[in-house]
Amino acid sequence: MAASPQPAREARPARKLVLNVSTCRRTHLLDITPLVMRAVADSGVFDGICHVFVPHTTAGVIINEMADPHVARDIESTLERLVPKDPRYLHAEGNSDAHAKSALVGVSLSVPIEDGVLALGRWQGIFFCEFDGPRPRNVHLRIVPDAE
Amino acid sequence: MAASPQPAREARPARKLVLNVSTCRRTHLLDITPLVMRAVADSGVFDGICHVFVPHTTAGVIINEMADPHVARDIESTLERLVPKDPRYLHAEGNSDAHAKSALVGVSLSVPIEDGVLALGRWQGIFFCEFDGPRPRNVHLRIVPDAE
Amino acid sequence: MAASPQPAREARPARKLVLNVSTCRRTHLLDITPLVMRAVADSGVFDGICHVFVPHTTAGVIINEMADPHVARDIESTLERLVPKDPRYLHAEGNSDAHAKSALVGVSLSVPIEDGVLALGRWQGIFFCEFDGPRPRNVHLRIVPDAE
Repeated sequence: MAASPQPAREARPARKLVLNVSTCRRTHLLDITPLVMRAVADSGVFDGICHVFVPHTTAGVIINEMADPHVARDIESTLERLVPKDPRYLHAEGNSDAHAKSALVGVSLSVPIEDGVLALGRWQGIFFCEFDGPRPRNVHLRIVPDAE
Repeated sequence: MAASPQPAREARPARKLVLNVSTCRRTHLLDITPLVMRAVADSGVFDGICHVFVPHTTAGVIINEMADPHVARDIESTLERLVPKDPRYLHAEGNSDAHAKSALVGVSLSVPIEDGVLALGRWQGIFFCEFDGPRPRNVHLRIVPDAE
Repeated sequence: MAASPQPAREARPARKLVLNVSTCRRTHLLDITPLVMRAVADSGVFDGICHVFVPHTTAGVIINEMADPHVARDIESTLERLVPKDPRYLHAEGNSDAHAKSALVGVSLSVPIEDGVLALGRWQGIFFCEFDGPRPRNVHLRIVPDAE
């Protein structure tokens, strides 16, 4: 009896991937929406959830307005005002403010996928949040289809 | 041989839906727990995850105490103290504080479902967080059953 | 014809469980990474998502640096500075600051699982965030494998 050929695992579109991004300032909200949208389109997933995870301790991820770039700058300045750089922290590397900002905004979020696209609101974009840059950074995506 | 009838796709209880809510103040934590509980009950999902997603940039979602309404009011006043309305923001619409509050609390969260109900703690409720109301708003729910 | 034995449902490794933890101070970031890692290993899930949920209203969960314990202490002091204990809150139990801190850091997060382990970054650990301790507390884990 002939063995039916095993489909190569690599043949399926990627449902998990790592985005490489580069931030440009110490505190920098970087719009990664086009990268995430492309990954969702390439995955072929029609309905499901896109999990976004940042594997860094001085960075995070948020969803907020992408239409007017001033909004992201205002969020950056608000976070800098709330948690300024300060020499009195215990951690000796001088970036405890960046760790605290990361704790406030968080490193994981989940976005629904509908009809093959992210179900973001009209003004929403996904922002990588750099708090101790500029640096190269990573973002993990996991695209999970609904059960049939 | 008679074909067995295909169940209509619409026959399956809804596992994704959009809640319509109305907020009553500029800053307003609105308890949406009964709406989410009802959606979970209607979905017929016994074990799984309920993903809650807010598609707005001046709103968010949190889980906190629903027993004493004073708690929600204290959280509202804390956020207003931390991020006051301020004319010095770059974004010209005068609601950058609302965008920043949304970034702090977040727009997505995931709650386990056990035995057909949300596995919330005894005092927990789910609150839509309005920061630039009053307005009609939406909340996306995605109810994902565990694999068999 | 002999019936093939039904595998007992209990035979499958646990994919949902409750961790019991004990906090030691009023505000205490407690590293629970080893407990979550063990649960993921025991689950036998190779690729998927680990959902972490805190069922309390004066506590939360974050991911941040676990290598230098000073970082967690600096985050604790930052949160205490931002949201101090204050007698002017409406809620009469004197712990509204703890509720607000919980709202800021959040009670749910999702971590990818790759090759059988949490895909945490090199310096990342998972911290239970106590804001009204010391107390015994719970953390719900839900480990969801990718669809085949």
